[in-house]
Amino acid sequence: MESAVADPPRGLAGVAVTITRISEIDGARGELRYRGYAIESLAMRPFLEVVGLVIDGELPDDRSIKQVEGFLSTERAMTPAQAALLSVLPRDTHPMTMLEVALPLGDSAEQKRAPVNRSRADQRQVLLALAAKVPTLVAAWLRIRVGLSAIDPDPALPIHADFLRMLTGKRPMAEEVALLDATQILQMEHGLNASTFAARVVASTLAPMSMALSAAVAALFGPLHGGADEAAYKMALAIGDPDGVPAWVDATLARKEKIMGLGHREYRVVDPRAVVLRELAHRVAAAKGLLPVLRTLSRVDDYAAEHFAKEGKAIRANVEFYKGAVFASLGLPPDAFTALFVMARIYGWGAHILELWDDHALYRPSAIYRGEPLREIAQAT
Amino acid sequence: MESAVADPPRGLAGVAVTITRISEIDGARGELRYRGYAIESLAMRPFLEVVGLVIDGELPDDRSIKQVEGFLSTERAMTPAQAALLSVLPRDTHPMTMLEVALPLGDSAEQKRAPVNRSRADQRQVLLALAAKVPTLVAAWLRIRVGLSAIDPDPALPIHADFLRMLTGKRPMAEEVALLDATQILQMEHGLNASTFAARVVASTLAPMSMALSAAVAALFGPLHGGADEAAYKMALAIGDPDGVPAWVDATLARKEKIMGLGHREYRVVDPRAVVLRELAHRVAAAKGLLPVLRTLSRVDDYAAEHFAKEGKAIRANVEFYKGAVFASLGLPPDAFTALFVMARIYGWGAHILELWDDHALYRPSAIYRGEPLREIAQAT
Repeated sequence: MESAVADPPRGLAGVAVTITRISEIDGARGELRYRGYAIESLAMRPFLEVVGLVIDGELPDDRSIKQVEGFLSTERAMTPAQAALLSVLPRDTHPMTMLEVALPLGDSAEQKRAPVNRSRADQRQVLLALAAKVPTLVAAWLRIRVGLSAIDPDPALPIHADFLRMLTGKRPMAEEVALLDATQILQMEHGLNASTFAARVVASTLAPMSMALSAAVAALFGPLHGGADEAAYKMALAIGDPDGVPAWVDATLARKEKIMGLGHREYRVVDPRAVVLRELAHRVAAAKGLLPVLRTLSRVDDYAAEHFAKEGKAIRANVEFYKGAVFASLGLPPDAFTALFVMARIYGWGAHILELWDDHALYRPSAIYRGEPLREIAQAT
Repeated sequence: MESAVADPPRGLAGVAVTITRISEIDGARGELRYRGYAIESLAMRPFLEVVGLVIDGELPDDRSIKQVEGFLSTERAMTPAQAALLSVLPRDTHPMTMLEVALPLGDSAEQKRAPVNRSRADQRQVLLALAAKVPTLVAAWLRIRVGLSAIDPDPALPIHADFLRMLTGKRPMAEEVALLDATQILQMEHGLNASTFAARVVASTLAPMSMALSAAVAALFGPLHGGADEAAYKMALAIGDPDGVPAWVDATLARKEKIMGLGHREYRVVDPRAVVLRELAHRVAAAKGLLPVLRTLSRVDDYAAEHFAKEGKAIRANVEFYKGAVFASLGLPPDAFTALFVMARIYGWGAHILELWDDHALYRPSAIYRGEPLREIAQAT
């Protein structure tokens, strides 16, 4: 028997698999930093500034911001292959499946050549060109699948303003764009979650950027990773009026059921992103009439926190908890929330892939074999 | 400074990330076993028997083989979404990119629902239905991209016989089918390489089988993982006649260049798959006129081995070394060799995904942060 060998930690919990300079999570203190800057200080910065920071490591100067803006504008149109794909996809294709399938069609055969022969600047450009197309793809698919025509991008608009216009056909209000910018900054990067890890494992073989990003989308589609925003939003809809919250929370906890979007495996006291998002959503609600579910959600967050505090536990909403209400207020259907996650996290995934390629090693872990010992095929047959 | 924290092992080398019962590699002794059976004893068994063994853990009985055969026959036709995809893909799309994109279109929205709510038998069926379509997709794409029409599958034929027929339009010889069956058995499963690990990481989020398999294809496309078969085959073509081998090998090693397909990071004395494949290819060569490159390859293997032996090193061909010549003899173009790898390894990937789901845990490792310490955004701007 091989039971003398200790079991590996389940899910690699607590196992450091790499060194990174991109983000730092201090779960005990409820802190998240991108490249050393606290998330609270970044949430209201210009979106492109944070994109540049996450990818390149420093807050970009004006020239660098203009360059990123240039890529995200001129590269925003789908490739012909992506457009052709969307024209033939079955209409019940989930937006996440669409993105997994569309990403590898977003670059050229030349751009897929082994990254070892390409400069970081080249690969960064491939990343930005792929990322630029994601809002276009999501907006187009949400229209095409219900029988509407896709709306072409307008490179003169900032990327999120253009996304909302391509989605609804109308120019969005400035408050809506600001809310989307901030929400996307909050979910741009978060260390080695399963999707980022998947991107790194695939990229470690020197597979193309587009195909590694596609694999990350696949991982994010799993309900253990993405999707709590949708669940929390639907919960709020089901509860309805904020007055119904105490009875609903009491009954749910009495049944020992989990409330989706509360608590976080790393943040022990508070998820700093949830604090920013809640505050921001309430501020915008005044100007724009954010959905009433936001009041219901806040009430669940506060009421459940009081309940848990009596048991000596600090359990508050995580970033997923408020995100669904924000996206719904911007006109997005619940099954597109995770695709919005991709629109933001793609920059974090890309930063990790570029970091890996700066000093890469193939991921090739081992396994402990506990199956049948050597045996022989019985004669007969 | 955080330099007190030790660096993580590069690429998780030597880190056990899971327990497995599927295959066992004894690199020091040059042994590979699927479910306890030595690869040498499996190579000439019926292909479907080994598929059943790898997926289910035991050599299947006749009833079980019939059931697997049934799935691999009736599910062999592309889905309408896959057929539509191939009709619009740019013709320069690499067969591996095609497979990454086509796999998530190979199951239904219903089959993509979280695997936690499905039985192992259900998921196994999804796997077989996806795997059944891979030969059809590869054969169709190799024809469509050069302007020929795809040939419909014939469910009455065994899967590899049908693949060769869909590829060339002609019924293959029995020796060709036997050679392909054996080659595919040899590369069906090989522990936690990067593609299998990618499949596990994605599946650990409870993402659908089809999307986790797609991520594995992406990893296998990386030149550090797949592709040595193509390189070795092209080397043999470049060398030409076997008489040219000694001079070519001497010159290459004098330049300190690597010879593709020689040596293996795990097998220290010999890759047992290469031994079987070399012997098999030579046996078939007599009946079928296998490409002359096989003689050149054997000569490189033997001559280089003598050279390395003088330096006290045991370096022999790995399985990739002979595979390209085998595939070329079956009419496959070099850029399709890795797609043939997918046709076999998909059963190994699937077995790992099913094993993971039997007792799954989300992969969520950690990273060591060595970036900027907390800093503040300078005023101005």
